[in-house]
Amino acid sequence: MEIKNDEKVKVTFYPANKSTKVKKGENLLRAAMAANVHINASCGGAGTCGKCKVRIDSGEVTSQITEKLSDEELRENFRLACICNVESDLAVSIPVESLLDKSILERKPKKVISPILGVAKLCSLTPECQTESVVVKLHLELPKPNADDNMSDLDRVSVALKKQYELDLPSTDFAVIKKMSKILREADWNVTATVVLTRRGAKLINIQKGNTTCCNYSIVIDVGTTSVYCELLDVCKGEPIASASNYNMQISYGEDVISRIVYSQKKGGLEKLQERIVSTINGIIEEVIEESGVDRENVTHLVAAGNTTMTQILLGLDPKYIREAPYIPVANFIPPVRASSLGLNIENNAYLYTFPVISSYVGGDITAGVLGSGMFLRDELTLYIDVGTNGEMVLGNKDWLVTTSCSAGPAFEGGGVKFGMRATKGAIEQVRISPDDHEPMILVIGNVKPKGICGSGMIDVVAELLEVGLIDQSGKFYRDKNLDRIRKGDTGYEYVLAWEDETQLTRDITINEVDIENLVRTKAAIYSGCVVLLNNVGLTFDDVDSFIIAGGFGHYIDVERGISIGLLPELDTEKFTFIGNGSLLGARLVSLSKDMLTEASKVARMMTNIELSNNKMFMDEYISAMFLPHTDLSAFKNTMGRLEKLWDRNNHIEKGDDIEL
Amino acid sequence: MEIKNDEKVKVTFYPANKSTKVKKGENLLRAAMAANVHINASCGGAGTCGKCKVRIDSGEVTSQITEKLSDEELRENFRLACICNVESDLAVSIPVESLLDKSILERKPKKVISPILGVAKLCSLTPECQTESVVVKLHLELPKPNADDNMSDLDRVSVALKKQYELDLPSTDFAVIKKMSKILREADWNVTATVVLTRRGAKLINIQKGNTTCCNYSIVIDVGTTSVYCELLDVCKGEPIASASNYNMQISYGEDVISRIVYSQKKGGLEKLQERIVSTINGIIEEVIEESGVDRENVTHLVAAGNTTMTQILLGLDPKYIREAPYIPVANFIPPVRASSLGLNIENNAYLYTFPVISSYVGGDITAGVLGSGMFLRDELTLYIDVGTNGEMVLGNKDWLVTTSCSAGPAFEGGGVKFGMRATKGAIEQVRISPDDHEPMILVIGNVKPKGICGSGMIDVVAELLEVGLIDQSGKFYRDKNLDRIRKGDTGYEYVLAWEDETQLTRDITINEVDIENLVRTKAAIYSGCVVLLNNVGLTFDDVDSFIIAGGFGHYIDVERGISIGLLPELDTEKFTFIGNGSLLGARLVSLSKDMLTEASKVARMMTNIELSNNKMFMDEYISAMFLPHTDLSAFKNTMGRLEKLWDRNNHIEKGDDIEL
Repeated sequence: MEIKNDEKVKVTFYPANKSTKVKKGENLLRAAMAANVHINASCGGAGTCGKCKVRIDSGEVTSQITEKLSDEELRENFRLACICNVESDLAVSIPVESLLDKSILERKPKKVISPILGVAKLCSLTPECQTESVVVKLHLELPKPNADDNMSDLDRVSVALKKQYELDLPSTDFAVIKKMSKILREADWNVTATVVLTRRGAKLINIQKGNTTCCNYSIVIDVGTTSVYCELLDVCKGEPIASASNYNMQISYGEDVISRIVYSQKKGGLEKLQERIVSTINGIIEEVIEESGVDRENVTHLVAAGNTTMTQILLGLDPKYIREAPYIPVANFIPPVRASSLGLNIENNAYLYTFPVISSYVGGDITAGVLGSGMFLRDELTLYIDVGTNGEMVLGNKDWLVTTSCSAGPAFEGGGVKFGMRATKGAIEQVRISPDDHEPMILVIGNVKPKGICGSGMIDVVAELLEVGLIDQSGKFYRDKNLDRIRKGDTGYEYVLAWEDETQLTRDITINEVDIENLVRTKAAIYSGCVVLLNNVGLTFDDVDSFIIAGGFGHYIDVERGISIGLLPELDTEKFTFIGNGSLLGARLVSLSKDMLTEASKVARMMTNIELSNNKMFMDEYISAMFLPHTDLSAFKNTMGRLEKLWDRNNHIEKGDDIEL
Repeated sequence: MEIKNDEKVKVTFYPANKSTKVKKGENLLRAAMAANVHINASCGGAGTCGKCKVRIDSGEVTSQITEKLSDEELRENFRLACICNVESDLAVSIPVESLLDKSILERKPKKVISPILGVAKLCSLTPECQTESVVVKLHLELPKPNADDNMSDLDRVSVALKKQYELDLPSTDFAVIKKMSKILREADWNVTATVVLTRRGAKLINIQKGNTTCCNYSIVIDVGTTSVYCELLDVCKGEPIASASNYNMQISYGEDVISRIVYSQKKGGLEKLQERIVSTINGIIEEVIEESGVDRENVTHLVAAGNTTMTQILLGLDPKYIREAPYIPVANFIPPVRASSLGLNIENNAYLYTFPVISSYVGGDITAGVLGSGMFLRDELTLYIDVGTNGEMVLGNKDWLVTTSCSAGPAFEGGGVKFGMRATKGAIEQVRISPDDHEPMILVIGNVKPKGICGSGMIDVVAELLEVGLIDQSGKFYRDKNLDRIRKGDTGYEYVLAWEDETQLTRDITINEVDIENLVRTKAAIYSGCVVLLNNVGLTFDDVDSFIIAGGFGHYIDVERGISIGLLPELDTEKFTFIGNGSLLGARLVSLSKDMLTEASKVARMMTNIELSNNKMFMDEYISAMFLPHTDLSAFKNTMGRLEKLWDRNNHIEKGDDIEL
C-alpha cells in the first residue's frame, strides 16, 4: 500500500551527513525535517526570521528573493532553507548558527503520504473498483425531426442514448423535460446529456447545448461535527481540483452531537441547525467554485459523508431518537436528494448522495472511510481509525467488519486547544524541539507565519516536549526548567512555540497543560476504543496486519510520534497508512465509481456495531491510557526504552556532561 | 357491451299504450321521454308549470308535495310527472290537457347508459383489467424497537412491508423519511403506509397514524380545452363519490389550442396559462373535497387526461413546437409529477399521473378514451369518437389502432351557442317538439328551471326542429310558420325553447340559426373525420362492429337523433355505446388498476396517427356533410325515408287532413 510519489531527489545535509529522498520541488526546510536535521526556524517557513541560513554545496535550488541575505552570502551560495526548493540532488551545509542539531538520535524517516489521492492512487487502495462515475455526460448528435420522423423530443433523446450508448432510459427528471425542447433547437440538435447510472437503469438529469462531456464535476463533502471539508473533483480526470474547509457553523449551538440534538429539540432548533450547516457548505462551495473557475451548471452531483446526527440534520431529519434508547436512526439508506431542495446553492439538476449509516453512533463517515480504505476487499486484518470529535474504529477484512465509536473530543481539529486550528494555511503542522536549547523548529502550512497549531503539530509538540524532557508522563511541565519559553500563563504552565513577532497574531503562540490534557483525553479514548474492539473479537494489536489512520490532523501524520504519545499502538511503522480525510476519500470513490455506491451499501450492511457507552472494560482502559504513552508499559516497551535513553541523555546534557554524538 | 342497470320496472302509458322499462326510482317524466310519449313540460321538471299532470292507475310512485294539484286531484291519484318517481310497475293515464302526443311515429327506444360507470361497470368494458389501484394503503403493526432490535425506522417499515405484504421497497419519498420517526412513535407503531406500485417496485409515499386503509381516494381530471371535469373516486370501493366541473379559465386567452399556444409565446404567457388551468382545477378540487367530506390527506393520487397542448400547459411545458412543423410534442410519456409542485392544492405526497400522448394533435384524452373503452383488448372493429372542441377518432381492434383529429368547435360543450352550457344543473338535456302545435317538452338536469342547453339537448332540438319541419336541411327556419315560438331575434330567426318565466333567466331561452350552423359545422367535422379515417384503411361504416361515443354531451345521448342530424352514421343503434366522458373513464381505470398504467403506454404506442390538415378528401367530405343529415343521401337512406314520411305527415296536419294515428 506504499503510495508512489513523483520524481525523487536525494538531499544530504552536512556536517551531520544525513540524507533523505524528497520529491523534486520540495521545500528545503521540509527536507531537513524529513532528514531529522534540525535547523533554526521560528517563522514557520515565511522567510522572515532569516534563521534557517544554509549553503548549497552542489546541486540546484530555486529560491525566492530575500533581504535577509547579503550579496556576498548569495554569491557564496547561501540561501534561506524555508524559501528554497530542491531541484536536483543536493549537498547542503548547515552553518553553526543555523545548526543546533548536535544531538538528535537516529530516527526512522516518518511515513509521508500525499494528502490528496487521485484516481490512480485511489485504485491502489481499491484496485477492484471501476472508474465510471455515477453521473456521466454523453454527447448526442440527434437527427433533426421532419414530417416522417416526428417523434417527441424526449423520445428522440432516448433513442439516441440507446443507439449511441446502448443505454435504456427508464426515467427523466421533470426539470429536463421542461427545458429540453428549447435547448435541443437552440443547440441545433447537438447536445450533451447528463445521466445518472443506477442499479435500476439510467435517469436523465440534464441536457446542455453542444459537447460538454469534458466538464463533469462533483463536490464531495465531509460533514464533520466540528469541521466541514469540501473538494471539487474533475470527474473525467478523476482528481480533485479545488478544496476548502471551514468550521461547522453549528458549533455555536454545541460542541458535540449530543448538545446539537438537545438544541434541535427546541422550537425551530432543527431548522436553525440545518440552516447553519447548509450555510457552512454553501460558503465552502462558493470557495471551491471560485478557486476552480468551474461553471456551477457543470457540477453534476454531490456526495456527503457525515456521522448519523450530522447527516440527519443536513437533510432536515429530526435527530431526536438518536439520543433516546434504543437509539434509532431515521434510516440507514437515504435516497439521493435534490441538493437545491435543501438550500444548497447548486443547480437544480444535481442530487446529493449521502453515505449509508450503520447506527445512531456509527455514521456515514465510517462507511465512507472503510470504503475508501478498501479494507472490506482484502484478506488481511485491518484496523481503521477515524480521529474526529467522535473517534471511530473499524476492525475486519473482506469477510467481517466490527465497529465502535467513542467521544474523542475535538482536540485534533483545534477544539479545546488554546491555539488549536484546522489544518489550513498558517497552522503549525510539524514541530521539533532541540534537546539542547529547547528551541523549536516549526513548519507551517503554506509557509507563512503561524497563527495556530493543527492536529499533526499537536502530536509532534506533545511528543517532543515529552522526549526532550520538558513535560512528564502525566503531561505536566517540569517546574524546574529555567527557560524563557516555559512560563506560567493564564491557564497554567505553557511552552512558547512562536514569539509574537514571529506570528500572524498579536501574542505568542503557546501550548499549555490544559491543551495537553485535552489531547491526552482524545488519544486515550481512541487507543482504548481500539483495545476493546480487538478484545471483543478475541484479538490484540499483534494480530493487526494493517493500521489505517484517518482524520483531519493535517497533511501528514508522524507515526512514530503518534506512538510516543500513545495515540497509536507500538507496531511496525510499515503497517501504518495515513489516508487523511477518510470521509472525503470514500466520497471521492462514490463520485468517481458507480459500483462504489453499491459497495457502500454492502459495507454498511456488513458492519456489526459494538456499543462502548456503559462498557466497563472501555472505562478501565481509558483511565489506564490517560498517561504518556500509557500506564501499561509492556505495551510500549520499545518506546519506553527509547524515551528513557533520551531522558537519560538529556540529563547528562543539562549537567554539562560531554557525551558522544 | 350492453351495460346492465339496477332493478327495472315497466311503465305503461295510456291511452297511447306505450311501455318502457326504467330503473326503479326513475323520474316519471323521463320515463315518458324514454317511451316516446309526449307530455307538456316547459319548466324542465322543476314542478313549477304544473303542465305534466298524469293519473297513476296502478302501481306505486313517490312524489314531492306540490301546490299545483288540488286535494281532490291527489285523492284521484293525479300527480305531476316531473316530480314523481317510479317505484314499481306502473299504469299511467295521460289526460288530454297533458297529452299532445297524438302523432309521433313509433321509434325505437334510445339507448340510455348510466352516466357513471363504477368498477363493475368498468370491467364490463375491460374485463381483463385487475382492480388493484396504482396507489395502495397497507396497515402495519410494527414491533417496537428495543436494544436487541434497533434497526432504523425506515428499515422497520420496509421489513414489515416485506413480511406482511411480500412487498420490496426500493424507494421512499424523502418527505416520508422526514416525518416518519415522529408518526411511528405517536401512533405507537400502528400505522398505515401508502405505497405506489410501479413496474420497478414499490415506492413509499406516505405514512399515517392508525389504520386508514379504508380512506384511499383519488381525483381524476379531464383537462379539456373548453371544460374541465373532476371526479373524486373512492379507490377501495372503486366508485366516484363526488364530481364537479367548470370552464377552463384559459378561455379568456383563446378558444382553441392554437390560440392558447400563440398566447403562451408572449412574455409570461405560458406561466399565466398554467396558472389559469391550475386555478380551474383547484376550484374544482375544492368542490369535490367539500361535497365528499373527504380529508385532503387521504387523496393519494391524481390522474389527468387532456390533449397534448392542455397536458403540456398544465405541466408548464412550452407548447411552442406543437404548432410548428413537423409538430413535435415535448414527450409522449411524462413521469408522475408531485401535484403540489404544479401549484395544485393537494397534499405534498400525492403525485399527478398524466396520460401518454400520441402526437401533437392526438393527446392523452384519446389514450384515456381508448383505454376506457377497452377497444384495444377486443377482436371486433371499433370506431371510437370523442366529441370535444377537438374532435378525435380512433379506429381499430386489439391488433391495430389508427387515429386522427380535427377541430370540431365547442358547440357540444356550449361554446358558440347563445344559450349553450355544459351538462350541469339547469341545462336542457332532452327535447321533444310536438309535430301538432310545435310545443316543446324539455327535461332539465337536476329537475330545475332551465338556464341553458347542453350538447345532448342541442342534438335533440336540431333533430326535432328538422323532423317536425321547422327548419330545412341547411338548418334555416322556414319563414312561413306562423308560430309565437318562431321569431326574428337579434341574430336572425330563432325558436323559443322556454319562455322567460319558465327559466332561471330574465329572458327567453332560444335556439337560433347561428347556433344551428355551429352545430352543423361540428357534426360535419366529426362525421367526415370518421369517413376519412375508415377510407384510409380501406374500410367503410359497414365494417364497424362497435361505435363508441365519448363527449361532454350530457348524461345521455340520443343515438337516433344523432343519426338524424348526421353526426352519427346510419348503423344499427345496437352498435352504439355512449361512455360519457372518455377521458374520465380512462383516468378512473388508471387510478383503480395499476396494470392500466402499463396498458395506457401500450395503447399510446399502438396508435398510428393520420394527419387531416391539408387532407383534400377531408375538406370535400366536410363540405358534403354541411347539410342535415348529409348531402350524400345514400348514406342516410333509412333516415331520409323516415324524415320524408314525417314531413309529409306534418304537411297533412298543417293542411288539416284527417290522418290515421
